[in-house]
Amino acid sequence: MLPLFFVCATAVNTCGERDMKIIKPRLPKGMRDILPEKMILRRHVMATVEQVFTEFCFEPLITPSVELREILLGKYGSDAEKLIYMVEHPGGKEKLALRYDLSVSLSRVIAQYPNLPKPFRRYQIAPVWRAERPQKGRYREFWQCDADIVGCSSMLADAEIVALTYAVLKRLGFEQFIIVLNNRKTLTGIGQYAGVPEKQLPGLYRSIDKLEKLGVDGVRGELRKAGLDAPTADRLLELLRPAADEAGQAILDDLRGKLADYPLALEGIAELEELVSYLPSLGVAENFYRVDLAMVRGLSYYTGPIFETLVEKPRIGSITGGGRFDGLVGMFSTQSYPATGTTIGIERIIDVMEELNMFPPDVGETLSQVLVTVFGADLLNESLKLLTELRGSGLYCELYYGTAPLGTQIRYALKKGIPLVVIVGPDELATAQVTARDLRAKSQTQVARSDVASVLREWLDRQSAA
Amino acid sequence: MLPLFFVCATAVNTCGERDMKIIKPRLPKGMRDILPEKMILRRHVMATVEQVFTEFCFEPLITPSVELREILLGKYGSDAEKLIYMVEHPGGKEKLALRYDLSVSLSRVIAQYPNLPKPFRRYQIAPVWRAERPQKGRYREFWQCDADIVGCSSMLADAEIVALTYAVLKRLGFEQFIIVLNNRKTLTGIGQYAGVPEKQLPGLYRSIDKLEKLGVDGVRGELRKAGLDAPTADRLLELLRPAADEAGQAILDDLRGKLADYPLALEGIAELEELVSYLPSLGVAENFYRVDLAMVRGLSYYTGPIFETLVEKPRIGSITGGGRFDGLVGMFSTQSYPATGTTIGIERIIDVMEELNMFPPDVGETLSQVLVTVFGADLLNESLKLLTELRGSGLYCELYYGTAPLGTQIRYALKKGIPLVVIVGPDELATAQVTARDLRAKSQTQVARSDVASVLREWLDRQSAA
Repeated sequence: MLPLFFVCATAVNTCGERDMKIIKPRLPKGMRDILPEKMILRRHVMATVEQVFTEFCFEPLITPSVELREILLGKYGSDAEKLIYMVEHPGGKEKLALRYDLSVSLSRVIAQYPNLPKPFRRYQIAPVWRAERPQKGRYREFWQCDADIVGCSSMLADAEIVALTYAVLKRLGFEQFIIVLNNRKTLTGIGQYAGVPEKQLPGLYRSIDKLEKLGVDGVRGELRKAGLDAPTADRLLELLRPAADEAGQAILDDLRGKLADYPLALEGIAELEELVSYLPSLGVAENFYRVDLAMVRGLSYYTGPIFETLVEKPRIGSITGGGRFDGLVGMFSTQSYPATGTTIGIERIIDVMEELNMFPPDVGETLSQVLVTVFGADLLNESLKLLTELRGSGLYCELYYGTAPLGTQIRYALKKGIPLVVIVGPDELATAQVTARDLRAKSQTQVARSDVASVLREWLDRQSAA
Repeated sequence: MLPLFFVCATAVNTCGERDMKIIKPRLPKGMRDILPEKMILRRHVMATVEQVFTEFCFEPLITPSVELREILLGKYGSDAEKLIYMVEHPGGKEKLALRYDLSVSLSRVIAQYPNLPKPFRRYQIAPVWRAERPQKGRYREFWQCDADIVGCSSMLADAEIVALTYAVLKRLGFEQFIIVLNNRKTLTGIGQYAGVPEKQLPGLYRSIDKLEKLGVDGVRGELRKAGLDAPTADRLLELLRPAADEAGQAILDDLRGKLADYPLALEGIAELEELVSYLPSLGVAENFYRVDLAMVRGLSYYTGPIFETLVEKPRIGSITGGGRFDGLVGMFSTQSYPATGTTIGIERIIDVMEELNMFPPDVGETLSQVLVTVFGADLLNESLKLLTELRGSGLYCELYYGTAPLGTQIRYALKKGIPLVVIVGPDELATAQVTARDLRAKSQTQVARSDVASVLREWLDRQSAA
């Protein structure tokens, strides 16, 4: 008799190097495991994003999770920089850190391999680490899906990034979202117009970024606290406010008049107009984007157009975010390159899709299609042969690891959501048949061994059509 | 006129928080970037591995790259432990580290979520970090592809792992490889038989592991240095030596006779026999596996069957490795579970596949299928519309970001290996046509706008059939 069972076995610690002592299984603060049920959804989202990136001819890149500290520091702004995890190898001399995003590593790559063909269109889907205060839905290790174009200063590249964002979200099944556009040059120009001292311009972004959260009065308070006088703060807020109600072109025309003496602002406005002009031909429907002069994005390295995507329901912040970062490559090389791109925020996207029940019905269950049962220890090899045949025909099959009564085996399939079950007992063996059971249709039939794979496939097709 | 070009733009540092100073772009020691050309190969390998894992009904899991130090330490043996990277967040109080493999995290998961259904069959494809001395083809961050079965003590589970290994390698196109099988219980039993003191058994594994590298005499020297007397070392080597020439069952029969008084050894032999007995029914051809009593595997946590895959050419070490680790979950919980699994060593697999030229001909080039050219700035939106149409039909298209002469644009496609080019000039626009050029067939034709997608698709199919 074969010892077939799946029960708990008592552990034998054969490591032998230290005495056994149970260590409480737990995770670092803000970190998480993604268990199979959730992973199957995530895999669907990541595969979809990767597929659309590929269709848009972005090519894959991997950079190491660990970078030299000097590569990362001085790029993100002082608030962000505090969240970087430090890494060291005992005995190693290098000062290392876990990457905070994928754009800085991309910029290093561009500088390090000057012969990469330009424009360089790459995507990278990978985790990044930020030691933020843990909160619901926010983790200290999370995945970014980035697509960037390096070596093209034309707004065409930015427009393609917006079109890519649109295509990804549509493919995932989003029907209600808005891609918000702005330009850092315009923001800076508005600051200059309002009379914000040059030195305070970066701080300005941080305050404006809170407009949605704090409202106009709240931000006015922030600006005053940051040292702006009341008239300056008012001039600033007056220009930023209309965004919500007026139509795109009207806002820009108005702004162009007011900011006529500020060349940087005019440049930003022209860029926004050019970018928007390409979107209809790129298939981005008009009601899916708008200009918002008060949209900022948190990172300090943006230099031109910036974009983010909002969904109305649930209110969850932006689900994509990006922009142009023409200065970043130049921090690693005398030969600089313009660059633009976006992050698809799959963490939030998955949250939204779960909340709105957007996953296709066949995503999210177990992947097993067929359970091959074991009639008895003496027929085990027959079950193994059937398993191997069915797998060879492309069916996703698993074996029941044991000789429990068939009822127990079938209950296992039901519990795991495996739709089909096959049985080879002595009768089936004698007649070269297999008993096949459809657990959803609650039907069972005997099938010739040579036909079983095609019958099971037919049942699966019928199920997914239903 | 639109400013269309892809040239170097001089960087404008708008970060404003510190003065600009060029930082030399470089990588930490032993780390690497994987540029698109290599990534396209890697993506093919990883997708194939993931596909076979899924067909075998292993489900995806993600665990964080960063674990609490106490979770990782004391699991791998003292040599391995020195290679672990330490992580900290300034201001954070936790002692953290980068994972060294995926099995310890899996074991933590099993202990932490006691309600996970058993048997739990999961795969994980993810990087791990080891600060090993950098050498050709070995990196300090590398990917592991692990498939494990937790909660089944039967050798059926081990046999499925071997069958999975076989299926993955076959699917990748490997025709010559050998899956080597052994059992830690047998190894320990041989040590007991030879008279190795209990305390020195773990060290024993390390010495035997060098058999291939150092030869019998070299290992004898190592064993003597480790404190074994000459007769003990000889008795040990006598039992380990025959593996290379004798046939599997004969070796085991011989061993069973000699080790009749060592129950642990007999248990190991019985496990090996049972495991091997399932392989034919699971479709693993006989000349693709063998028992080798001197095969050890480096990690200290293995408790039963161990497996690795060798290729003859190039000599590169094992390309898969795994085994049973029944004690690991029990280090995190009083409720232990048996577990077995393997790592598919995709780093070495990719090296071998490149060396043996095993990639399908269409893998490894650019992914772009069609370059949409831009006739002139005034026709740019026509090109964008065509681009969007072709993408909508499923073709992988990229746009030339500029209005350079058509010859320059076509040379760009040739240089990048993009096989097809389309042109919309004033003549084409007037007649609702598109000029399509097949750069490989060196042919060109005018096609009705409504037919262009299907014509291009036909050309691609013809090319890949050729």
